[in-house]
Amino acid sequence: MMDICLLGTGGMMPLPYRSLTSLLVRCKGKGYLIDCGEATQISIRRRGWSFHDIDTILITHFHADHISGLPGLLLAMGNAERQEPVLIVGPKGIQHVVHSLLVIAPRLPFPLEVHELDGNEDFTVADMEISAFRLNHSMICYGYSLRLPRAGQFDPEAAKTLGLPVQYWHVLQKGETVTWEDNTYTPDQVMGPPRKGLKVTYATDTRPVDVIAEQAKDADLLICEGMYGEPDGPEKAKDKKHMTMQEAAGLAKKADVPELWLTHFSPSMVNPLEFEEEIKKIFPRTVIPKDRRTVELKFED
Amino acid sequence: MMDICLLGTGGMMPLPYRSLTSLLVRCKGKGYLIDCGEATQISIRRRGWSFHDIDTILITHFHADHISGLPGLLLAMGNAERQEPVLIVGPKGIQHVVHSLLVIAPRLPFPLEVHELDGNEDFTVADMEISAFRLNHSMICYGYSLRLPRAGQFDPEAAKTLGLPVQYWHVLQKGETVTWEDNTYTPDQVMGPPRKGLKVTYATDTRPVDVIAEQAKDADLLICEGMYGEPDGPEKAKDKKHMTMQEAAGLAKKADVPELWLTHFSPSMVNPLEFEEEIKKIFPRTVIPKDRRTVELKFED
Repeated sequence: MMDICLLGTGGMMPLPYRSLTSLLVRCKGKGYLIDCGEATQISIRRRGWSFHDIDTILITHFHADHISGLPGLLLAMGNAERQEPVLIVGPKGIQHVVHSLLVIAPRLPFPLEVHELDGNEDFTVADMEISAFRLNHSMICYGYSLRLPRAGQFDPEAAKTLGLPVQYWHVLQKGETVTWEDNTYTPDQVMGPPRKGLKVTYATDTRPVDVIAEQAKDADLLICEGMYGEPDGPEKAKDKKHMTMQEAAGLAKKADVPELWLTHFSPSMVNPLEFEEEIKKIFPRTVIPKDRRTVELKFED
Repeated sequence: MMDICLLGTGGMMPLPYRSLTSLLVRCKGKGYLIDCGEATQISIRRRGWSFHDIDTILITHFHADHISGLPGLLLAMGNAERQEPVLIVGPKGIQHVVHSLLVIAPRLPFPLEVHELDGNEDFTVADMEISAFRLNHSMICYGYSLRLPRAGQFDPEAAKTLGLPVQYWHVLQKGETVTWEDNTYTPDQVMGPPRKGLKVTYATDTRPVDVIAEQAKDADLLICEGMYGEPDGPEKAKDKKHMTMQEAAGLAKKADVPELWLTHFSPSMVNPLEFEEEIKKIFPRTVIPKDRRTVELKFED
């Protein structure tokens, strides 16, 4: 199970009625935050999810609307009595950026581990398989996919045939090896092939690039910027290295993803819903969300 | 005339229903901001006052709740097409702090002038006389008084007696010297003694120190922290180098100021108004304000 909250849908600057784009994912007691612009901590508080359990913070790039809330968030996490390490991941240079921002939060009650990306990279945090993939923006920027894998189905008949006592079955179910009475038993002897997991793909700020559709191909949800919707949107998007709603819908169609949530709306776009009809003609499963839209992704069957 | 808006009344962290403490003063087309915690730009936008016209930013100290909104605010000012220089004033070290925070806002369309205080200091910006005065907090911290002086009354009879033609009178009224037909005329020949100006004094975060009452003695308004109100407030305030509402009211009484606004309420204080009756017994002209309480100070008569 994966709880997903799009904490904000805005781009460039926080507005009284629209928080900056940021995603909070909860899974098996761990929290994964993507981006942390100014006032992200307020949106987390509004949602009511824990500050304490944010273990991993993934930063797409160093424009202020994606990272300026970091010192305040880390202080809030310290106030929530977090003591365990926090992992921060981002583009090359993030060590310097984090170090600089912490001039106003020099003493945190937990250690920070900072990981600098240097190109596309897959890594695992707790149960989560994370892919960072390069986007195309006015500065180095990454999208992220978060994937919770699901083991195959346990076959009790196979376990019985092996003669392994019941009290060892859960070890194999967790994917570990069992040694009993001088015999070694491995998970593949009792587990079916891995089943479909859960996956969310997040891409902002960027021009529409193929990697987004590729990443979203087996995702349950694509969260993608759609900064402009109006007729001169394509020109502005090209100029500022952003994406229109129409372009995002095109990527979602290519990926044939179950659902697309648009985000990172320009402050000049007062009501993104006015483009809903047009965008749904390109990709019917598009959602134009409000801040803090939340979904619980569940395993099939 | 001086427009004063207390943008927030919170301390420590921004809350969904309470912005961080910050003061915006408008006077003769210029803007003066004291403190800029996370999401201060949202509160300014809520108030509807101009980003463009913020000329001077006074920082009390480097705790995040008083400065973390600075990069975002400066970017918003750039977006509002400001090009004129902005003056930032704060404790020793502010040059380094501002430089560090600007790692995420490296290209502003206006120059920054940064002034480091090194003890109590009086200085003038445009028409505003500003006093910075040392407080007593867990790090070096300053309070600020903003004073708009008022020239004496113009005496047309005196000007007539001098024989100076009417078209030169406004020059003397502005405080400048006139040379006409080989004679020199000075303002003091036609102007009465300076009249009472307007003054606001702002003090947070600090223990109650005499300098606050001294600064507030001729002020029209004292804005002062009152972080705690509850029975164990004095202990917490002493421990964390803050002030209780009761202590703030005591300072206001000592200064006999026309009005006291309390601010910087602890996040644990859900409803500061519950202490109103008690505090008004100490100082009846106390206001326990909501965010964005605004007043227009006007010259007498």
